[in-house]
Amino acid sequence: MDKSFIDCLKDVSRSPQSILSEQKDKLPYETGARWERGQAIFVLRPATNEEISDMVAVCVEWGVDIIPQSGNTGLVWGSTPDTTGNQILLSLDRMRTVFELDLVNRSVRVGAGVRLSELNAKLSEHGLFFPIDLGADPMIGGMISTNTGGSKFLRYGDVRANTLGLKVVLGDHDGTLLDLNSALRKNNVGVDWKQVFIGTSGAFGIVSEAVLSLELLPQQTAVALLMPTSLASVPMVLIEAERRLGPQLSAFEYMSCNAMEATFANVASLKNPFSGTELPEFVILIEISRPWMSRQSEQTLDQVMEDFLVELWEHPDRPLSNAVPAAPEDVWPLRHSIAEGVRKAGYLIAFDLAFERGRLLDFIAYTKVEIPKRFPSARVFDFGHLGDGGVHFNLIISPDEFLDDVDIVEGAIRDWVIETCVRKFDGSFSGEHGIGRKNQKYFNKYSSKLITQIGAGLKQALSPGNLGVPQFHKGCDEN
Amino acid sequence: MDKSFIDCLKDVSRSPQSILSEQKDKLPYETGARWERGQAIFVLRPATNEEISDMVAVCVEWGVDIIPQSGNTGLVWGSTPDTTGNQILLSLDRMRTVFELDLVNRSVRVGAGVRLSELNAKLSEHGLFFPIDLGADPMIGGMISTNTGGSKFLRYGDVRANTLGLKVVLGDHDGTLLDLNSALRKNNVGVDWKQVFIGTSGAFGIVSEAVLSLELLPQQTAVALLMPTSLASVPMVLIEAERRLGPQLSAFEYMSCNAMEATFANVASLKNPFSGTELPEFVILIEISRPWMSRQSEQTLDQVMEDFLVELWEHPDRPLSNAVPAAPEDVWPLRHSIAEGVRKAGYLIAFDLAFERGRLLDFIAYTKVEIPKRFPSARVFDFGHLGDGGVHFNLIISPDEFLDDVDIVEGAIRDWVIETCVRKFDGSFSGEHGIGRKNQKYFNKYSSKLITQIGAGLKQALSPGNLGVPQFHKGCDEN
Repeated sequence: MDKSFIDCLKDVSRSPQSILSEQKDKLPYETGARWERGQAIFVLRPATNEEISDMVAVCVEWGVDIIPQSGNTGLVWGSTPDTTGNQILLSLDRMRTVFELDLVNRSVRVGAGVRLSELNAKLSEHGLFFPIDLGADPMIGGMISTNTGGSKFLRYGDVRANTLGLKVVLGDHDGTLLDLNSALRKNNVGVDWKQVFIGTSGAFGIVSEAVLSLELLPQQTAVALLMPTSLASVPMVLIEAERRLGPQLSAFEYMSCNAMEATFANVASLKNPFSGTELPEFVILIEISRPWMSRQSEQTLDQVMEDFLVELWEHPDRPLSNAVPAAPEDVWPLRHSIAEGVRKAGYLIAFDLAFERGRLLDFIAYTKVEIPKRFPSARVFDFGHLGDGGVHFNLIISPDEFLDDVDIVEGAIRDWVIETCVRKFDGSFSGEHGIGRKNQKYFNKYSSKLITQIGAGLKQALSPGNLGVPQFHKGCDEN
Repeated sequence: MDKSFIDCLKDVSRSPQSILSEQKDKLPYETGARWERGQAIFVLRPATNEEISDMVAVCVEWGVDIIPQSGNTGLVWGSTPDTTGNQILLSLDRMRTVFELDLVNRSVRVGAGVRLSELNAKLSEHGLFFPIDLGADPMIGGMISTNTGGSKFLRYGDVRANTLGLKVVLGDHDGTLLDLNSALRKNNVGVDWKQVFIGTSGAFGIVSEAVLSLELLPQQTAVALLMPTSLASVPMVLIEAERRLGPQLSAFEYMSCNAMEATFANVASLKNPFSGTELPEFVILIEISRPWMSRQSEQTLDQVMEDFLVELWEHPDRPLSNAVPAAPEDVWPLRHSIAEGVRKAGYLIAFDLAFERGRLLDFIAYTKVEIPKRFPSARVFDFGHLGDGGVHFNLIISPDEFLDDVDIVEGAIRDWVIETCVRKFDGSFSGEHGIGRKNQKYFNKYSSKLITQIGAGLKQALSPGNLGVPQFHKGCDEN
């Protein structure tokens, strides 16, 4: 008698934990970080590369879709199954045993199922860290699959810039395991294939292990909040900060008044550095840091920051209307709570946009005028990464609007914001959240036909099975 | 009457300068930076993206091989035609008009035919530079096609890490122009296609323009030469330098005694920082730098360096046998002259290897013992980039050996060194010189069959014409 799908999976699974089929066990995996919720046939939880390979081979043989998932903190529906109930969810959360630290190479080999916080806790004993700074706490596999950026991008770059090597299981009939580039910092012997798997949501292969380049953990940090005279003076502040502070500059973020207000209103226990005064319209958060404690003979970072603020304050062009040094332990919780604060402020329409640095400011200025005219019920709660051109551009629709069909309103806002970002300001509709079912429509609209075809061909060659988000599947642009 | 190949090319060429057919005009393009010399049907010198497109389309239509070339300073025979006389050489040296500096984005859009020295001269007026530091003076197109590293890799990364966007002409029937990723620092809307064209010698497409991320030009620099007690103490020096100096550390290089000796003997006008004493066995060159002049209130970099040397000198493990601060203007000419100095020392067999940082030292220690035993006529003149694991591993064969067939000796040495690098020490046989006809054999030997097939498939999809080095051409692994 022919075996069933589940029997074939059981044949290759190494432990009873490897397959979840009960509704209650599957639920946390089927539910995304925000609102989306799908349904999986089974949740597979392999614990070794070999087990992933064998399970993938069974799924490909049976023609079943596979959605890889690690920390499931993504925001674009890239790590959850759809609602058909016909997909397999393959979780990497048991890929946790590999941890090989190489202090001389300043690198670590680590499993895809290790959380960022966990990795950094282990590394901190050695004065090292993986320098991606986020509000969320994802696992390494997902960070690679979305090419996460975060608040220290300006200083350390994104995940791509800090990944030396990968192990990847291809979605082919053998579940082929590729070992890509090991732990070398320099290697130019052909296509750097690992790049194809970074930022593509697992569609080209399942990242099971990575070798990451590490940075020295800052031993000293200073933070300040700067209030520019106007949006037009921000570029000058950025240029001066980079020139004067060089690689000490580890963050150059911004928070709008609306975003801060919503955060103070909705997140308890935050300290308001502006308490007693009105919230400023636009605040720049700069951080400087260094990986050693100051020697007696040198300035502390607080002194470096103070000197910088004085110079900028006295600059003949008067770029600042105010500047206050602040404690990192007050400011970063505020910055990292904005996502939560804004989410609680009402019906949220969130964007993860990126621009050339100057044009980000043009976009902010333009939408400040246009959005109230075009979408009077929407208010903008923006914040983001000025230093690398990224902005979390969030709109909240007031309750009145729900009299109309909210989906229509939301659709119109989404289309307009993304069209304005991509066509008018040459920006990106996914700066650091990656691609998932949520932005399928815009992927189809803004990808060139040639590039989509070549992508589908490459996916066919690497992972002919239906692996990952549908963007790269053959013919998906006709959906 | 059917048109000839040259007539078709003339039809699309925009100026008489665009096609060179005279032997004397072609010669400098046909001759490589070292010994190789090929022969081209014509040398094409298009000056715009559209002219490149049209010329490529004609060559693809006629089934003629195209070898792209920019500065022609490469060392692996990637930018010169072979000796058949059946290939077209397409030079990018007239792609020089585009130069769009964006100070706020800290980036520049530049044509593939601009030399590094020229670009950096223009940028220096603005206190900026493209932070790839080399002995040679290549053009931007070739730097991207080989993913150049250089002496400041440790601080700034390679060309890949500093490239924001590319324009690429594909080797297809239309000479399709791809505009990839513009000038964004963050963009995750699919495969980051520009990565495929970086470091692949133009085989997947001809890079015609690039948007480069820029760095702040150092305003202050300090250099020192450190003599480790033994090879075993080098990792500790590296770790301490990174911890103590952080991102101020801009180079961590090494020079062997043989390499320095050959350089002083063969390159005039160099200052010997060890004059009067014996040359040390192994010298570490460290550089620190920062993009501003010291303020009165802060230490100069000379003081920072001195403090560091004192701390290291007094370290209980005694990692140093000597250390001398030195003038950058004395030391860098020495470091950058080694390639020339060694080349003049005899019959050279040069390797561009890379390892994990710790294993580079293991490789040096191992070959120091093994090479004299296995190849008694060879002497090692090594130097390189300890901070990123790269080594220019050079052997000189003594004249006696020429009694035998030098090709056989050289072949045996090459095979052994590369086998030892790749198999015994998990290294790379091309750290930063890229791939060309010169390392075809090793590309075939050490690339997996699956990866080679997928590469050939991707090349077929992007650039079905015979573009660039033969490594990626269909079936080349059967040669």
